[in-house]
Amino acid sequence: MSTARTESERVELANTALYEAVERGDTAAMEQLWLNEPGAEVSCVHPGWPVLRGRSEVLRSYALIMASTDYIQFFLTDVEVSVTGDTALVTCTENILSGAPAENEGELGPLVGQLVVATNVFRRTAGGEWKVWSHHGSPVLAGEEDEEDDGDESP
Amino acid sequence: MSTARTESERVELANTALYEAVERGDTAAMEQLWLNEPGAEVSCVHPGWPVLRGRSEVLRSYALIMASTDYIQFFLTDVEVSVTGDTALVTCTENILSGAPAENEGELGPLVGQLVVATNVFRRTAGGEWKVWSHHGSPVLAGEEDEEDDGDESP
Repeated sequence: MSTARTESERVELANTALYEAVERGDTAAMEQLWLNEPGAEVSCVHPGWPVLRGRSEVLRSYALIMASTDYIQFFLTDVEVSVTGDTALVTCTENILSGAPAENEGELGPLVGQLVVATNVFRRTAGGEWKVWSHHGSPVLAGEEDEEDDGDESP
Repeated sequence: MSTARTESERVELANTALYEAVERGDTAAMEQLWLNEPGAEVSCVHPGWPVLRGRSEVLRSYALIMASTDYIQFFLTDVEVSVTGDTALVTCTENILSGAPAENEGELGPLVGQLVVATNVFRRTAGGEWKVWSHHGSPVLAGEEDEEDDGDESP
């Protein structure tokens, strides 16, 4: 079904736009990207954080993160989109490269790599646009049960 | 609207049932609780894990967790339900008390407390039942950015 494929592609574009807005530190874009409908409260979990709810709390948290981050880039891998009616669920891996502000102006702070997995939920509005309803990111910790003793990883 | 309130309550019951099934180690209940619809692939992120996708992978992970857990209890707090059409989004805090199998039979292993936040997405089926479409749990880490450098970490 070409319609379904198109919607899935549009969801993936909305998902990419979310990360690009963070990369640019674009608070105006963030306000546009997040759902703004009465009755459907947005929620957000940054890696290691408690749950944030409502547009103002969520958008403020991004403003805080973007203000305290000098450089951030997301390399998205393993992106999967599942669309059902007016809701879409995206899971992906965020390979993050970020830098804190440098101590001296004009320099780049130390870069840090981070592996995060995300579940992002989107709603299609009456206008046909896909908006972020929920973002949940969490750190991937080393040493999963089913991988650590699969025989001979260490020949 | 009483209809909306009823649906919200039904979603909360489905959310509670998910955790009770894990507490009981009830794999048959888990199979019933998770969405089983072609085109809407389920996904699951356990705290610190990568993304798991599809019923068989997700249910197998729960069977593994339940088999390696002697005792687990979830105290859910801060539960918020948002229903829009046939989709519901639940965020909550899982205050987990769990114990690994004891070394000696008949004894209880050491109990561990854990603080996890979850975003759970539910779909209403054609039969009117709310089923789990996605679960994402992540550890709440101490010392958020705005708290960690309040003075003297390195005295």
